[in-house]
Amino acid sequence: MFRTHTCGELRLDNVGEEVILTGWVQRLRDKGGMLWVDLRDRYGITQLTMEEGITPANLMEQARNLGREYVVKVVGRVVERYSKNDKIPTGAIEIHVSKIVVLNPAKLPPFLIEDETDGGDDLRMKYRYLDLRRTPVRRNLELRHRMMRETRAYLDARNFIEVETPYLIKSTPEGARDFVVPSRMNPGEFYALPQSPQTFKQLLMVSGFDKYFQIVKCFRDEDLRADRQPEFTQIDCEMSFVSQEDILNNFEGFIKHLFEKVKDIHINKLPRMTYADAMKYYGSDKPDIRFDMRFVELNPLVKNKGFKVFDDAELVVGICATGAASYTRKQVDELTDFVKRPQIGATGLVYARVNEDGSIKSSVDKFYTAEDLQAWAAAFHAKPGDLILVLAGGADKTRKALNELRLEMGTRLGLRDKNVFAPLWVVDFPLLEWDEEANRYHAMHHPFTSPKPEDIDLIDDRPGDIRANAYDMVINGVEVGGGSIRIHDRRLQEQMFRLLGFSKAEAEAQFGFLMSAFEYGAPPHGGIAFGFDRLCSLFGGSDSIRDYIAFPKNNSGRDVMIDAPSPISDVQLDELHINMKNLPHK
Amino acid sequence: MFRTHTCGELRLDNVGEEVILTGWVQRLRDKGGMLWVDLRDRYGITQLTMEEGITPANLMEQARNLGREYVVKVVGRVVERYSKNDKIPTGAIEIHVSKIVVLNPAKLPPFLIEDETDGGDDLRMKYRYLDLRRTPVRRNLELRHRMMRETRAYLDARNFIEVETPYLIKSTPEGARDFVVPSRMNPGEFYALPQSPQTFKQLLMVSGFDKYFQIVKCFRDEDLRADRQPEFTQIDCEMSFVSQEDILNNFEGFIKHLFEKVKDIHINKLPRMTYADAMKYYGSDKPDIRFDMRFVELNPLVKNKGFKVFDDAELVVGICATGAASYTRKQVDELTDFVKRPQIGATGLVYARVNEDGSIKSSVDKFYTAEDLQAWAAAFHAKPGDLILVLAGGADKTRKALNELRLEMGTRLGLRDKNVFAPLWVVDFPLLEWDEEANRYHAMHHPFTSPKPEDIDLIDDRPGDIRANAYDMVINGVEVGGGSIRIHDRRLQEQMFRLLGFSKAEAEAQFGFLMSAFEYGAPPHGGIAFGFDRLCSLFGGSDSIRDYIAFPKNNSGRDVMIDAPSPISDVQLDELHINMKNLPHK
Repeated sequence: MFRTHTCGELRLDNVGEEVILTGWVQRLRDKGGMLWVDLRDRYGITQLTMEEGITPANLMEQARNLGREYVVKVVGRVVERYSKNDKIPTGAIEIHVSKIVVLNPAKLPPFLIEDETDGGDDLRMKYRYLDLRRTPVRRNLELRHRMMRETRAYLDARNFIEVETPYLIKSTPEGARDFVVPSRMNPGEFYALPQSPQTFKQLLMVSGFDKYFQIVKCFRDEDLRADRQPEFTQIDCEMSFVSQEDILNNFEGFIKHLFEKVKDIHINKLPRMTYADAMKYYGSDKPDIRFDMRFVELNPLVKNKGFKVFDDAELVVGICATGAASYTRKQVDELTDFVKRPQIGATGLVYARVNEDGSIKSSVDKFYTAEDLQAWAAAFHAKPGDLILVLAGGADKTRKALNELRLEMGTRLGLRDKNVFAPLWVVDFPLLEWDEEANRYHAMHHPFTSPKPEDIDLIDDRPGDIRANAYDMVINGVEVGGGSIRIHDRRLQEQMFRLLGFSKAEAEAQFGFLMSAFEYGAPPHGGIAFGFDRLCSLFGGSDSIRDYIAFPKNNSGRDVMIDAPSPISDVQLDELHINMKNLPHK
Repeated sequence: MFRTHTCGELRLDNVGEEVILTGWVQRLRDKGGMLWVDLRDRYGITQLTMEEGITPANLMEQARNLGREYVVKVVGRVVERYSKNDKIPTGAIEIHVSKIVVLNPAKLPPFLIEDETDGGDDLRMKYRYLDLRRTPVRRNLELRHRMMRETRAYLDARNFIEVETPYLIKSTPEGARDFVVPSRMNPGEFYALPQSPQTFKQLLMVSGFDKYFQIVKCFRDEDLRADRQPEFTQIDCEMSFVSQEDILNNFEGFIKHLFEKVKDIHINKLPRMTYADAMKYYGSDKPDIRFDMRFVELNPLVKNKGFKVFDDAELVVGICATGAASYTRKQVDELTDFVKRPQIGATGLVYARVNEDGSIKSSVDKFYTAEDLQAWAAAFHAKPGDLILVLAGGADKTRKALNELRLEMGTRLGLRDKNVFAPLWVVDFPLLEWDEEANRYHAMHHPFTSPKPEDIDLIDDRPGDIRANAYDMVINGVEVGGGSIRIHDRRLQEQMFRLLGFSKAEAEAQFGFLMSAFEYGAPPHGGIAFGFDRLCSLFGGSDSIRDYIAFPKNNSGRDVMIDAPSPISDVQLDELHINMKNLPHK
């Protein structure tokens, strides 16, 4: 028998019992004739104790030779501890060891297997199986498991049926780049790995499945960043015979359920914000509303006072940072440098500080009178002690930059607590966005998104103004989910493809099966998909989705542990009728 | 609002209520001034009723123009039915319609959307979204969903953690052929899609996860048969610090749980049979034990009586078919033809029928006396009315052929009822099997399977005789799951790779990460994987796993609905540095 208990299980109640434990040697202390070993498994840590004169000498000797991360089986008796350790659940007891069996020795690990480790990123990825032994990393995956379980519990209780859709599907030109899979049985042809099960879930609605979900891997062959992985997991949902309202309500319930069950946090009704308001007041379609600091537009107040920068600007817009009037010159300079960084791209920063006596000191005192500045303060509802920060320039670019500055100020002022969660719905997204480079419209969500019925008249003359029945769930500035009511009418779908620049033949070749399905009795339907990795990292309080993926890939799309991708054999290439061409020299 | 109730929900209690239903028009009957419409959704069927003189004429007209599979929304009042329909749960009521809104019309479907359809396989696959509307097909996916749910419920309650392992991994030469995915970011290199998460689940054990599971898609690029798909789903499980006994017990509990929760069937303790016995008594490593009809070997009884076929045979072995003595000459001839089919390959069939008076009539009376034949009957414990069927030849081939004959007789005699389930464990599989063609050993399970400690001494001299700690769960002649205790020691794993013909460099290149992991404190571990598609089809009483997959592929690996695989663009090929070569002309 390998064990009678786990290393997280024994309590005072077990005192006197003869037990068998197995686990990893976490630490060994040898002091004044006493020997302590911390034995670790997934469930916890239990202290083993040996003492010279009491423990047989050969057992002491054996224990002293144990190394970190040895796998051992231990027989012993549960004893009450003399000095208890309140930090661990087994801290009231220890094991007086009578036998040790080394199940597997271990080489010295390349980094410390402790909560705080000395291993760098690369090393921990190469030995990911050792990194996963560390409690914080293990807890991330345990959180992920609980979130999966609660997701299923919620949807299952509401009659959603989980249906597995295929992974070997068809490559489509719309959206991101596909990973493709050459077919041996159909030479010259390729499958694609799904970027999402979008068309399949819509077909399931046509089939009458009514409420579908799936927790499913999706794939995008895009250049990677910290929060992107070539393969990622989605909670994919679709419903028939629903309005947008039904979907928002259902998945508002879902996120509340998750917060309650996984984090014991009660969430109030989610506010809703239109895309237009989000852009106007936060400069972002995923506003972090843990703090207010809304944008205030100053154009009417600041123009024609001789300050050329503002006079020439399409938009002058600012935020009011509560309590930041005490910022030193150096701190303000830092903020100026921050907004001038190329990726943010503002040309400068104007500030106005509201002093304790109500007077205002600004960086543009030359152009604006005290009354002018008081009018600014009034527009911001600024109070003594507040710091007004203003940017100016082209409207879109300036809003984007001010969004970054707002988030930076939120962080500096401690308003972005990772333990506070502020979800909201952003609704009424535009249907299309104009792509300057390609000189055509793209679907903002995807080509299957339904325009708002009241906006359909705009389709010929002002398609860019059409709003969609599309919505995102945003939490703390992170888009965790998005969806839409779909088109279920063949003609409207054709019209949409035309708007997006598809020829009739292209649309038919790529999505003929879906448009055909719409002719055989397609119900009105809509859905949503959540980025599960992101949701986990948000719940866990991390910025990196990698921390919540068991075996992630690095920024070059490599798994450095197993060394993938890798060359394949000539036999494999021949079977697939593939030649490699123009390979870069290594 | 789309609906107040589903089409499966209304009962006598609802009589008098004003309701809104949505669904598909299943059928329309127009007779003697009465109009009945069966409205269908995922939840059931509700009868709508209209009557000339009572229902407004324009509504009657509108209803008469509804076609099959139109999607409609209906407003009406729940009324008790005059003649109840006991066959459906809503059969006590009907709806007196006051309003119909056509949400989407439908073209005439290419086949009948009824339990029994007139659509052929190809047509139903092309319009799979319509086939999925049929109740029996929908029920298959509902069964699958329930089985997934109960799988998770069982494992979750036992502290198993579901961990998602990567889909973009490394191609390995062992086992079946991989599907590969060219990497754009790493030109000339390929990922492979996993044939199973084997190495990853073992690494999770090295990480201390202790109890892991995953319901996961796996991929094999093999030529297809009815019960094989290029992508299939596995219930993948692994445990640490366990013996084979622990695993068998845990997953015996699992299958009992599934039968109980999903089918309301109580299963007794699973019998265990060694591989050697399974081959000896059933000629198969996956015996169907719903019926007995064990093999009886006749060599000592039949040799040297002048019958050359038996004298020359390595093995003479038979079965006794209870109650089949009444078989006519024609029926016996059919059996002879059956065993002579090339895929079975017997050269002939000897029979001996035990007459009601106890006398025995055989096809080899010329060579065997009445006493000889009585001795045969005794060996089979044959009774009057039984038919003894005997094959002879090379041992392996003859056992295989007799297995087929036994299954055929089981079917003919009605002993293979789809509603009866007889699971068992087959244990003690050989570690290796000899591959005549490649002139080397293959791993019978996989290269990570542990030999039985008591057989390890055979490794140099008689490796073919080593038994493994490997086991299969078999139900009704179908292998539904299999697994093993794994190697967790680097040196033994190296030895194993050597036995399988890997050079040291090859083993290191392919599985170095795993062997390296074994050096850092790998726990003893083992696991099992269930073929989920097969398990579903078995529970559902079907022979085809395709019936339990939402969007299956055909025998050429094609999804004929979306038309995948398909050619990709030159841009895509260029980005991947791929040229196609030697493509067959179409």
